[in-house]
Amino acid sequence: MPRKARSMNLTQVSEWDDGKLRRKDDYLAAEEPLEIRIGDDPLSVTMRTPGHDPELAAGFLFTEGLIQRRDQILKLQNAEPQDDINPGNVIEAELATEAAPDFAKMKRHFFAASSCGICGKASIDSIRSRLLASPNPDFRLDADILLRLPDALRDSQDVFQRTGGLHAAALFDPNGKLLVLREDIGRHNAVDKVIGWALLEGRVPLSDSVLLVSGRGGFEIVQKAIVAGVPVVASVSAPSSLAVQLARELHLTLIGFLRGRRFVIYAGEERMAGKTQKVSRTPA
Amino acid sequence: MPRKARSMNLTQVSEWDDGKLRRKDDYLAAEEPLEIRIGDDPLSVTMRTPGHDPELAAGFLFTEGLIQRRDQILKLQNAEPQDDINPGNVIEAELATEAAPDFAKMKRHFFAASSCGICGKASIDSIRSRLLASPNPDFRLDADILLRLPDALRDSQDVFQRTGGLHAAALFDPNGKLLVLREDIGRHNAVDKVIGWALLEGRVPLSDSVLLVSGRGGFEIVQKAIVAGVPVVASVSAPSSLAVQLARELHLTLIGFLRGRRFVIYAGEERMAGKTQKVSRTPA
Repeated sequence: MPRKARSMNLTQVSEWDDGKLRRKDDYLAAEEPLEIRIGDDPLSVTMRTPGHDPELAAGFLFTEGLIQRRDQILKLQNAEPQDDINPGNVIEAELATEAAPDFAKMKRHFFAASSCGICGKASIDSIRSRLLASPNPDFRLDADILLRLPDALRDSQDVFQRTGGLHAAALFDPNGKLLVLREDIGRHNAVDKVIGWALLEGRVPLSDSVLLVSGRGGFEIVQKAIVAGVPVVASVSAPSSLAVQLARELHLTLIGFLRGRRFVIYAGEERMAGKTQKVSRTPA
Repeated sequence: MPRKARSMNLTQVSEWDDGKLRRKDDYLAAEEPLEIRIGDDPLSVTMRTPGHDPELAAGFLFTEGLIQRRDQILKLQNAEPQDDINPGNVIEAELATEAAPDFAKMKRHFFAASSCGICGKASIDSIRSRLLASPNPDFRLDADILLRLPDALRDSQDVFQRTGGLHAAALFDPNGKLLVLREDIGRHNAVDKVIGWALLEGRVPLSDSVLLVSGRGGFEIVQKAIVAGVPVVASVSAPSSLAVQLARELHLTLIGFLRGRRFVIYAGEERMAGKTQKVSRTPA
């Protein structure tokens, strides 16, 4: 099935406009569960927008630390048709022996996993426990190029334009060229899809790339970027306190409120290049 | 510590504005992990904005089906101080015997849990498995009252106004009176906090309330509303395909794109009252 056909659904709705009620057809962003299995063992279920599922699975496995390299994925495919399961909503991965999770250990580990931003961290202690290296310190990004990225993102967001209901994540090169864009009902999924694309294409670490996200820049987004070696993360909205803290500790450049001719640098200012005039400090 | 002090952090940032770089102080929406424990057993970890944590825990336990009634929560309190744990980030719940989870069973069940919208559903099969009843069929909401709710929400969103970084959820009565508003870095957390508030206040089922959310109306938001008996869910943004499907199956009224003098009714049109003129059908 073509991607667009699965990533949105047409339905009939009623539009109320200043007292007038009108029946019309409307496109909805598709949301369906995706189960990722390692062999026959279920690993995770996430609500996602169908499309680019192998990339989503690869990005999830990589950014959540189950694999460290592309070649640890031996197989990645949709499940065989079964009773009561839509095979399009199940991805089976086969991993190299050294990467295959210890399910007995993971049962304890994943037990405490929950929604929205942790994805399998078993306790507060473990959130910062993974050894993360700082991304490319020599990367430089021109401010004028950065300013152009949100328009490039919006111009390529085809599902969003129809449904108004999707998050986007995109990778750009240092000249502002769009490398890949993915849309998803979940912000983390959109990021996993672009990083999964890069992993499957052999482009990781993404030492010369900028990650732009449509939503807020939270802890998990920064963490995923660091795992993939992305030096600059930019968002059109606000970052969280913990995202800023992690970006500062790991020397990632974190940009927020990238709108018009303005942006805010929360961490890693040294990577921003271009003609800039420093002016006096202003109060909040 | 007062709530506002914990729900945002002041930090120094650099603002780039058309070539001028300025140091300034900026408020960030706070993001910290919260671990919910049943007795000593960790149940879930979620990234949340500190504040109203007992409500968040109560709402989570209730909307995820671990408890069905207020009186099944025997105790709900912060953990005792321990090494390496911020007791403010751990909530311990004690549940009535009949509600106390079977951890052996739940280890299998939660094993497959992952981020963003499922919170402990073990497989695709189980997503629709809980018996959910339809909310109050007799509830009616005047369109003119509905139109006023987004302004009421924004006027009360104090942390958002400072940080630009938080989702909000609010409950209103049928006359448009704000009952409760909670802000959180996570959309689902904001909903859990308002429903948790209602549960702890003895106001569940919320048969005469409207739930307004600042973000998208996804499957999980609709599911949580149905569990709490909320008859109308409205959002200023788009719903997902699965949210619309669930709302139609369970006869919940789902409103999207509530902006200015306009909104779209995705399900449950029969609950919308007020002077309305039906006009001819228009194409998408």
